[in-house]
Amino acid sequence: MNRPAVGIAIGPGEPPPALLEKAVVEGGAALADLGEARGLIWAGGPGEFPDELPDTIEWVQLPAAGVEDWFTAGIFARHPKAQFTSAAGAFAASVAEHALALLLAGVRYLPEHLRAASWRQQDFFPHVGSLRGKTVTIVGAGGIGRALIPMLVPLGAHVIAVNRSGRPVTGPGIPETIETISTDHLSRVWPRTDHVVVAAPATAATNHLIGADVLARLKPSSWVINVARGSLIDTDALVAALASGAIAGAGLDVTEPEPLPDGHPLWVLPNAIVTPHDSNPPQLRFAAFADHVGANVQRFVEGKDLLAPIDPDRGY
Amino acid sequence: MNRPAVGIAIGPGEPPPALLEKAVVEGGAALADLGEARGLIWAGGPGEFPDELPDTIEWVQLPAAGVEDWFTAGIFARHPKAQFTSAAGAFAASVAEHALALLLAGVRYLPEHLRAASWRQQDFFPHVGSLRGKTVTIVGAGGIGRALIPMLVPLGAHVIAVNRSGRPVTGPGIPETIETISTDHLSRVWPRTDHVVVAAPATAATNHLIGADVLARLKPSSWVINVARGSLIDTDALVAALASGAIAGAGLDVTEPEPLPDGHPLWVLPNAIVTPHDSNPPQLRFAAFADHVGANVQRFVEGKDLLAPIDPDRGY
Repeated sequence: MNRPAVGIAIGPGEPPPALLEKAVVEGGAALADLGEARGLIWAGGPGEFPDELPDTIEWVQLPAAGVEDWFTAGIFARHPKAQFTSAAGAFAASVAEHALALLLAGVRYLPEHLRAASWRQQDFFPHVGSLRGKTVTIVGAGGIGRALIPMLVPLGAHVIAVNRSGRPVTGPGIPETIETISTDHLSRVWPRTDHVVVAAPATAATNHLIGADVLARLKPSSWVINVARGSLIDTDALVAALASGAIAGAGLDVTEPEPLPDGHPLWVLPNAIVTPHDSNPPQLRFAAFADHVGANVQRFVEGKDLLAPIDPDRGY
Repeated sequence: MNRPAVGIAIGPGEPPPALLEKAVVEGGAALADLGEARGLIWAGGPGEFPDELPDTIEWVQLPAAGVEDWFTAGIFARHPKAQFTSAAGAFAASVAEHALALLLAGVRYLPEHLRAASWRQQDFFPHVGSLRGKTVTIVGAGGIGRALIPMLVPLGAHVIAVNRSGRPVTGPGIPETIETISTDHLSRVWPRTDHVVVAAPATAATNHLIGADVLARLKPSSWVINVARGSLIDTDALVAALASGAIAGAGLDVTEPEPLPDGHPLWVLPNAIVTPHDSNPPQLRFAAFADHVGANVQRFVEGKDLLAPIDPDRGY
């Protein structure tokens, strides 16, 4: 005999978005009206949120990664019995994919290829590299870093993940053999590093983390990718390293200053790829949210810990 | 008690290249002189190959993917007792990585980003795509196709592999859920295809496989990648589809004609990325050969079937 399916409601509005309905069903639950549901997927803002929730609602999934507005609106205080989850981490995969696109474009010498108007195969041969056997250091092992590792592994790259604790990074698709190093020992990493991906939060401790000293320890074949915040790289030092050929190039989705002003050297350096903080564009966000919903519905049905739980006492 | 290690010789010349020595040891064997070895890794040409091999040599690894010269030189006929293997497939990973770089560069709109000299975030947003949830059809499931699939899976792409038999594609890192379709049913694939990677051999049957009819069935967001041979795509039809916006773009490591002549429209179309058949450049080949050697040494030590066996009767 089958157990009755877990009922999940989707709000606000009817009919629910098809992607969310699919996520609920593929996660192993059944779409239900709010009165018969154990969970609620909320795709709207805090202003439209119901004043009262049925007692049967154990879990509410919110659509935003940062939920300051929901605290301000008093939503968590008003519904103390429900476990709320945010969309934190849901958008990491798109940013990680962007980082991989920038890194591969650099390593495969695509900027110069795109400028070419003649075959010149022999000129290009020595500049085309590969990630196979190369060491990619990912500074920051949060959602973006953890999403990027499984993308780099099948390319044969050796990954060093850098986090604050130095505790081994784990997660779906992350092999146990991944090397994790504490930020305290960051200086030991550079002699072994071929390429750097910056994916750490902007804090006082990470300000200008990649400066002239670090850039001097990288290789003429190294690419530096930043998909985190512009402040993590000393822009003047980077421009100097790019202009002198101390490193091979930089792929930047974020800059300091941001937006990057017209006429800035990074617009004209041939070995800089600048994308205007568009690694997680609006039209990709809803599909990413639906993926996150599917994963959390499955966890809810299976009684596992939910992704991105909100702790009202902690404040996020 | 440990069994004595399997001895493998490396030739010609002394000392052996460090990468090959490392491959032998990491494959679980020990470096040995030819007289005491059961296997021989040969990094030279057929002209330098020993006239006589010790009876103890069971296996010889050659450094080339195509071994026509070795047949011509009569090497296999002269050493009928040894199993020879080629380097076929060893260079597929680099070509697959190049295909991924071209595809991601296209989907992430990097060509236009590289031309930009101003932030214009709102202009870029709608053009930045993702492979997540998209269907990538790989035409040809040989070494390159089988190397590319594990690179696409962690990006969340749905992969359709197309081969002659329609038998499910298998291999390291290839999930059992990968869909395989026979070339006989190729026309059914296009309505479901977001992006195409051409990785099939050039034959009479594959000549202009991607022509005006196929291009018309793709999407304005589709990228077409060719890392196989130029003849598989009808260049004139492709130029027309790129110019009209019928497809989003093309990433071409091979062209017809090749080399692509100066002044050809593909050099100036903003949505064409041309690389001059440099996806497997000379300086990457030796490291790829060493990886292949390591894999085959391990198989030899474990008594498993070797990769890329040469059948003297079959002629390749």
